[in-house]
Amino acid sequence: MIPLEVLQNLAEKTPSKIILMIIDGLGGMPNPETGLTELETANLPNLDAMAGRSIAGLSDPVGPGISPGSGAGHLALFGYDPIKYDIGRGALSAFGLDFHLEANDLAVRANFATIDDNGIVTDRRAGRIPTEYNRELAELLRQIKIPGVEVFVVTESGHRLLLVFRSDNLSDELTSTDPLIVNQPIREAEPVVPAAAHAAEVINAFSGEARRVLSGKHPANGILMRGFAKRPNIPSFQTLYKLTPAAVAAYPMYRGVARLIGMEALPTGNSIAAEFQVVADNFERFDFFFVHVKYGDTAGEDGDFSRKVRVLEEVDENMPTLLNLKPDVFVVTGDHSTPAVLKNHSWHPVPFMLQSPLCIPDKLPSFDERAVRGGSLFRFPAKEGMSLMLGYAQKLGRFGA
Amino acid sequence: MIPLEVLQNLAEKTPSKIILMIIDGLGGMPNPETGLTELETANLPNLDAMAGRSIAGLSDPVGPGISPGSGAGHLALFGYDPIKYDIGRGALSAFGLDFHLEANDLAVRANFATIDDNGIVTDRRAGRIPTEYNRELAELLRQIKIPGVEVFVVTESGHRLLLVFRSDNLSDELTSTDPLIVNQPIREAEPVVPAAAHAAEVINAFSGEARRVLSGKHPANGILMRGFAKRPNIPSFQTLYKLTPAAVAAYPMYRGVARLIGMEALPTGNSIAAEFQVVADNFERFDFFFVHVKYGDTAGEDGDFSRKVRVLEEVDENMPTLLNLKPDVFVVTGDHSTPAVLKNHSWHPVPFMLQSPLCIPDKLPSFDERAVRGGSLFRFPAKEGMSLMLGYAQKLGRFGA
Repeated sequence: MIPLEVLQNLAEKTPSKIILMIIDGLGGMPNPETGLTELETANLPNLDAMAGRSIAGLSDPVGPGISPGSGAGHLALFGYDPIKYDIGRGALSAFGLDFHLEANDLAVRANFATIDDNGIVTDRRAGRIPTEYNRELAELLRQIKIPGVEVFVVTESGHRLLLVFRSDNLSDELTSTDPLIVNQPIREAEPVVPAAAHAAEVINAFSGEARRVLSGKHPANGILMRGFAKRPNIPSFQTLYKLTPAAVAAYPMYRGVARLIGMEALPTGNSIAAEFQVVADNFERFDFFFVHVKYGDTAGEDGDFSRKVRVLEEVDENMPTLLNLKPDVFVVTGDHSTPAVLKNHSWHPVPFMLQSPLCIPDKLPSFDERAVRGGSLFRFPAKEGMSLMLGYAQKLGRFGA
Repeated sequence: MIPLEVLQNLAEKTPSKIILMIIDGLGGMPNPETGLTELETANLPNLDAMAGRSIAGLSDPVGPGISPGSGAGHLALFGYDPIKYDIGRGALSAFGLDFHLEANDLAVRANFATIDDNGIVTDRRAGRIPTEYNRELAELLRQIKIPGVEVFVVTESGHRLLLVFRSDNLSDELTSTDPLIVNQPIREAEPVVPAAAHAAEVINAFSGEARRVLSGKHPANGILMRGFAKRPNIPSFQTLYKLTPAAVAAYPMYRGVARLIGMEALPTGNSIAAEFQVVADNFERFDFFFVHVKYGDTAGEDGDFSRKVRVLEEVDENMPTLLNLKPDVFVVTGDHSTPAVLKNHSWHPVPFMLQSPLCIPDKLPSFDERAVRGGSLFRFPAKEGMSLMLGYAQKLGRFGA
């Protein structure tokens, strides 16, 4: 991978335009009945024709054999080493809830839980209380006062909460209060480094106060805290690549990740057609568009092979909206694979194609896991995709004399 | 390569089973008479059919153009960067002789040599004395007493010896006493770092005493020492990958390398059939099997093309024993290439195939150097193979949130 400082030195502001379409969970596996993957099954005339004009290959989001979370898969495609920029759960929860983290915030993923009189955790999910009850109990938690600290309590869903502690000097290098298994006592947060001592005091004070205000609210009579995270410190697209980037994503978490790296998250409807139209409507204002299609991943996680096929076909039907914009570089790929047969994110490498008037087309017959094996990008780390896009968009100066 | 700490965090204990078969010196080169490599010449119905069900590629054990020793080639396939974990020759000799090194041992590869009255080395191999004579002379060396140091003298073969010095404070950062070319004086070992001063004194004392006890034993009237090495400090398979690994290897050196990383070396006969049966007999007890087939390398080093072909065919004939176990992941590869036409280890990349019910098969027609070029693993560092195996065996949790 080219170091980011080198790319930064080479990057030039130019009028050329890049579209990066990330179909969440794009890669699949063969349906045991047909031997064909979701991409191989779907009728994709536009994507297949684009493969004929593109260079293509298989990308590893994090590394061979590694199943990535969505945050890691996206950061890699944006050019950031996902192992170096490993975003904590608390921060991802904040993105997912559209909560804007400030630099001195400490974000925490919390659960309502059931704790007995001896402090033993008997149910880590408080019987999976309904979201409405979570909202009621969150009101009680908002009454807790920690001197010198502003606390935000945000209901996620079911038993899950986001907590944000805003104050100077709150390190995220703490151990969880969540024992992670039942029939163990709720833990005290402990500082992993001396500088986290203050944060540990704040967390333990809140944990104790939460048990007080929730006493009598069995089964949700306590909270467990983990995934402590500060806002990740990542150089922006503007700084690194001299881009003016926009994100078109219906799901909050992806808008959050996009904003983290300096993208403007454009308002959009939920449908694929609506998202693509937002790109068209704003095409003059930006030079980089991240377009996120969530539904491939959700269909894959539900194990619904046919629905994933239909999502891909819906993307294909709407491709003309984007193709007609004639971007200088147009990439279609995924942040990871989510094969319907596995019902989960997987480690399989992800199909990737890049169309540009300046590429030497691989002339592949179709866009799918097996066809792209014949492409000239072979197999590569996803984090190298960004310098490819910038190069084909002629946004990088010459390296070396 | 995924850092080992990251793999360690992701690794989970699961019931799935992995077989890694390493055919020593697997890769070959075309026979000038036929234009076909050993793998292309051999009749391999089982391996070829397995290629049809697998993903495949070419792996570089250490790096492009680098001919690896067997230790380095194996460590890479076990997931260790062979450049970081460079095992010294002395330690490899100890493994090869089934000598169990302790943490404070200093292992040394030594040669009997001919040294004239002026201390000039006239034959670095003492006229290649027979092993029996080596054993006699070793008895003389065992009479040498170095205060505070226990010395082990182990005959290897011909003029070669293993010496092990057991004492506190023996660094391996020393220069050789072996001038490496003839007609040069035998050298004093010199410390490369100040902490090695004591070790240098011990080695030089032993070198002087050896000349005394061997005087009159021309041509073996002295010893040369090099390859100073401590026992390598490598995290185990249990610690890193949460595996319960077994090694099935007839040759001591490979059992030694395997034990070094925490594998249980199972007793086995010498034949391929016997080795494979040991895997079958112990299949329930372990979740990772390293199976080592030595004879490909020895045939290659002897320049015996036909014998190497026959070894491959013998492996193929016995494949059903392993295939019938239905391991979740089954890899067939080599630790390096040993083309019979070169009579030596070489730098050529090594065929690698991975069979798993969770792979999208590359449907290759055969398993050989040229066919695997069409595989979806393309060309990759051997050290990435371990995360691939763990991934396809579903032994790695999700990376990142």
